[in-house]
Amino acid sequence: MTDPVFAGAAAPRVDFRTDPSRYRHWRLAFDGPVATLTMDVDEAGGLVSGYELKLNSYDLGVDIELYDATQRLRFEHPEVRAVVLTGGKERIFCAGANIRMLAASPHPWKVNFCKFTNETRNGMEDAAAHSGQAWIAALNGTASGGGYELALACEHIMLIDDRSSTVSLPELPLLGVLPGTGGLTRIVDKRHVRRDLADFFSTRSEGVGGGRAVQWRLVDEAVPRSAWDQTVAQRAAEFADRSPRAAGAGAQGVVLAPLEKTRTEERVRYRHVEAALDRARGIVEITVHGPADDPPADAAGMHAQGAGFWPLAMTRELDDLVLDLRTNEAESGTWVIRTRGDVGRVLACDALLLDHASDWLANEIVLYLKRTLKRLDVTSRSIIALIEPGSCFAGSLLELSLAADRSFQLAGVFEDVDPQAEPAAVVVGPMNLGPLPMGNGLTRLATRFYGDSEALKAATAAEGEPLAAADAERLGLVTFTPDDLDWEEEVRIALEERASFSPDALTGLEANYRFAGPETLETKIFGRLSAWQNWIFHRPNASGPHGALRKYGTGQRADFDRERV
Amino acid sequence: MTDPVFAGAAAPRVDFRTDPSRYRHWRLAFDGPVATLTMDVDEAGGLVSGYELKLNSYDLGVDIELYDATQRLRFEHPEVRAVVLTGGKERIFCAGANIRMLAASPHPWKVNFCKFTNETRNGMEDAAAHSGQAWIAALNGTASGGGYELALACEHIMLIDDRSSTVSLPELPLLGVLPGTGGLTRIVDKRHVRRDLADFFSTRSEGVGGGRAVQWRLVDEAVPRSAWDQTVAQRAAEFADRSPRAAGAGAQGVVLAPLEKTRTEERVRYRHVEAALDRARGIVEITVHGPADDPPADAAGMHAQGAGFWPLAMTRELDDLVLDLRTNEAESGTWVIRTRGDVGRVLACDALLLDHASDWLANEIVLYLKRTLKRLDVTSRSIIALIEPGSCFAGSLLELSLAADRSFQLAGVFEDVDPQAEPAAVVVGPMNLGPLPMGNGLTRLATRFYGDSEALKAATAAEGEPLAAADAERLGLVTFTPDDLDWEEEVRIALEERASFSPDALTGLEANYRFAGPETLETKIFGRLSAWQNWIFHRPNASGPHGALRKYGTGQRADFDRERV
Repeated sequence: MTDPVFAGAAAPRVDFRTDPSRYRHWRLAFDGPVATLTMDVDEAGGLVSGYELKLNSYDLGVDIELYDATQRLRFEHPEVRAVVLTGGKERIFCAGANIRMLAASPHPWKVNFCKFTNETRNGMEDAAAHSGQAWIAALNGTASGGGYELALACEHIMLIDDRSSTVSLPELPLLGVLPGTGGLTRIVDKRHVRRDLADFFSTRSEGVGGGRAVQWRLVDEAVPRSAWDQTVAQRAAEFADRSPRAAGAGAQGVVLAPLEKTRTEERVRYRHVEAALDRARGIVEITVHGPADDPPADAAGMHAQGAGFWPLAMTRELDDLVLDLRTNEAESGTWVIRTRGDVGRVLACDALLLDHASDWLANEIVLYLKRTLKRLDVTSRSIIALIEPGSCFAGSLLELSLAADRSFQLAGVFEDVDPQAEPAAVVVGPMNLGPLPMGNGLTRLATRFYGDSEALKAATAAEGEPLAAADAERLGLVTFTPDDLDWEEEVRIALEERASFSPDALTGLEANYRFAGPETLETKIFGRLSAWQNWIFHRPNASGPHGALRKYGTGQRADFDRERV
Repeated sequence: MTDPVFAGAAAPRVDFRTDPSRYRHWRLAFDGPVATLTMDVDEAGGLVSGYELKLNSYDLGVDIELYDATQRLRFEHPEVRAVVLTGGKERIFCAGANIRMLAASPHPWKVNFCKFTNETRNGMEDAAAHSGQAWIAALNGTASGGGYELALACEHIMLIDDRSSTVSLPELPLLGVLPGTGGLTRIVDKRHVRRDLADFFSTRSEGVGGGRAVQWRLVDEAVPRSAWDQTVAQRAAEFADRSPRAAGAGAQGVVLAPLEKTRTEERVRYRHVEAALDRARGIVEITVHGPADDPPADAAGMHAQGAGFWPLAMTRELDDLVLDLRTNEAESGTWVIRTRGDVGRVLACDALLLDHASDWLANEIVLYLKRTLKRLDVTSRSIIALIEPGSCFAGSLLELSLAADRSFQLAGVFEDVDPQAEPAAVVVGPMNLGPLPMGNGLTRLATRFYGDSEALKAATAAEGEPLAAADAERLGLVTFTPDDLDWEEEVRIALEERASFSPDALTGLEANYRFAGPETLETKIFGRLSAWQNWIFHRPNASGPHGALRKYGTGQRADFDRERV
């Protein structure tokens, strides 16, 4: 019953690049500080064939457009201080992820789809928390499953009170899976719904509406149809008024011009980022190039460069590459990351951004880099950083190495290549000391040295110093520091060994070791919730031929193995 | 290849009751304030047939004895202030969980085995933190996999430095699974091993010994063979000296007499706890009886009653019942919990315990109740509390209802049964306000009202008041309060509906909703780590016919699906 369009080599390569002129499922409208994003899914617009996107249900293609909209709102519309999320259909806001799509999807597709969906929803919360763009869910009809989970990612949830519209999480009773895109976590950890009410609510496929939904904190207000438009407008204006967004009313946005990208079977190439695919070995070699020029002298220069400003351009490319590889290259389990360029220019770009932290664009760029690095943290690929002469692992780019599972820094130089080269150095910069926290709320340095405050202090004290291999190793900033004689073999063995291990066990190992220390709403979603959901997705009770996902809509009941695990 | 002894109805019923005279795998020895627990596994003593417990590897039977030892140390040996955990074989401390046993086990057995193993290890940490019994791992040979994870649960790890003994986590490279009994979590969150070193260590099947193991924080000290006995004794004496354990040298222990238990296919009966099994409906009806008498007047009376003192006796029975049902009755997915007895006597027992919090026995009983309730929290069964006339959901027993996924309290009385009865009341007591935290560090009340400090304050302020249905509902202490007319149908529907859902999805739902709020080392083990491990256990790359668990020891390599999920 698995739809052939999903199967193996025949799977279409997914492209995450889009723009509002190409949206099939969303409409963006602007009215001063308020934007309205209307979900109006084209039933026939599924990313792959075999299902219809009825009742504003969504698939990855719909979510790709949503993600694009969140990014354009932040960069192209600095004047927007509140985003109203609403639906373009009658009586239904959104029916959640398309069930036929889910039922037909192979396991990795389901998992990857949920991960991306979660990241976009986390990004909406990030916009409210750090960017002064609060999202308001204006549920003009029933929001069920992923539709309600989308609303849960908003700061304020309004539900039309028409005696029929409800919010619901019918995943468990109807499909035998979890509300796995943040639902279970946000219900209790964000909205503070009492656990027993949450339990009841999540087993009741028809959901809860009106006053009871308010009383149980499932929504913030239930509004009669007669007062709907006016109340939504009023709430949006209130949120916009309260917004601390740095951009003034007349601020000019930065157009996110189409990414220049060349994609072949062997290569992905952008302006600053490139990747070489070695399918036989299951390795992708990624190179991030530092800025080709010195940064502009001031904020005005940064605005003038816009999407061409290196930190923004590089981040967009890296973001697209991570999504592309994650979705389209599942068998390439190891990513090797190198950087090339001038350390000083990277640090100068960082300094420009941090010196103008109150500038809306500088703020947005740093936040975007933060989100992209978080995407790397939850990526189920082994990440190995190679720090060689000519590299620029400094400040923002040092985060790539700190996000890696292991790093190798060459002690000395490659004698055969360039005996006169400067040995590779890493540099801790201000970007490593706060502005780019992981999902757990700690910097990558603080997570690395979790429980070892002396080591964290020493690494912090080295800020600004170029650290050759011996120093970087002593400070615990890199894992191994082979010299020219050992480098090639040591790296080769590490990569071959990695490729020989169980991909599943590596995914589990990395998902644990990358997240030492505290857990947050965000890490609970990717840890506790997603790991349980992945297990359930893999169980015959959900995905087997007689499982609930497969039986949904057939009129037959699922045939469950009743054993509790 | 699944061993038939594990399969379905033929599975032996596991009994968790044992005592030192029956141990086959451990030796307990005492020397004043220091106890030595020596692991010396009987190869032929596997719980089920089909594998040999070579190299001090263990199965559930070995772990049942370990759990019994931890309990006896706390109750029967108040004088013990340090426990040395060591091995009775040459060159090997412990090789971890038996791999043939794991490979042959069905999925639920693996998961249940790991859960119990984790609980015992958490209990060892609880003994050190709250009971003044610090555990010292004296690794007289290699500790690999679960053997090293056992050491990680100790406060201090000593490794013999003999150029061959190592600590290792070979699960990933050899078996394609995780070090899932706390390993990954404790390495970074407790021992603060740097994540990249942790990653390297966990892919290196031969492990790390000597000075490097100390340098990476994997062990606390490496001790030459010549100084081994003396250093271990010295370390034990130091820990014993520092112990704040309340019991003096001459304190008399309380003998944990064999539990009186009747077990049939339909019933489990102890003195204070009973359970009726309704296999057809998949329900267990559990009744906990309150104290039959007033508690003794003072601590001396409590000591005199010993294991007969109601809170201790009831907790032991409940603990055994939870383990029995969890292991032996996997298809009974819903536990209905009732209490019967005198509210005042429950609260009086609670008061006696809390008034003598500095008495070692009172302290141990409260800690044991805490651990048993935590066991309930991580049990993969739906828990429904029914609060009826004649019940005693007060203080310590109210925790049973607060641990439930939902609760029903009868408004009024059963007119047909006893129209003159007192309506059921619940009572918040001091036991609900601190001494019995969940694994997340919060009380069940604070978890219930997570993010709603007003509600928590109101519930706390009601301390001591008998709360009839309307009041309990208003305060958010119970979920539903049907009256006599609706009770039977409402409860029946709730139970039938529960039984109709996917057991896997319920497990995932409950594992999320029960743990609102912060995560701790403990909840990370049962959440992040266990959920990933369960997923991996279920994947063909581990457990399929060509998976790593099945291929181990055959000389053949596992055949992995290389797709990263």
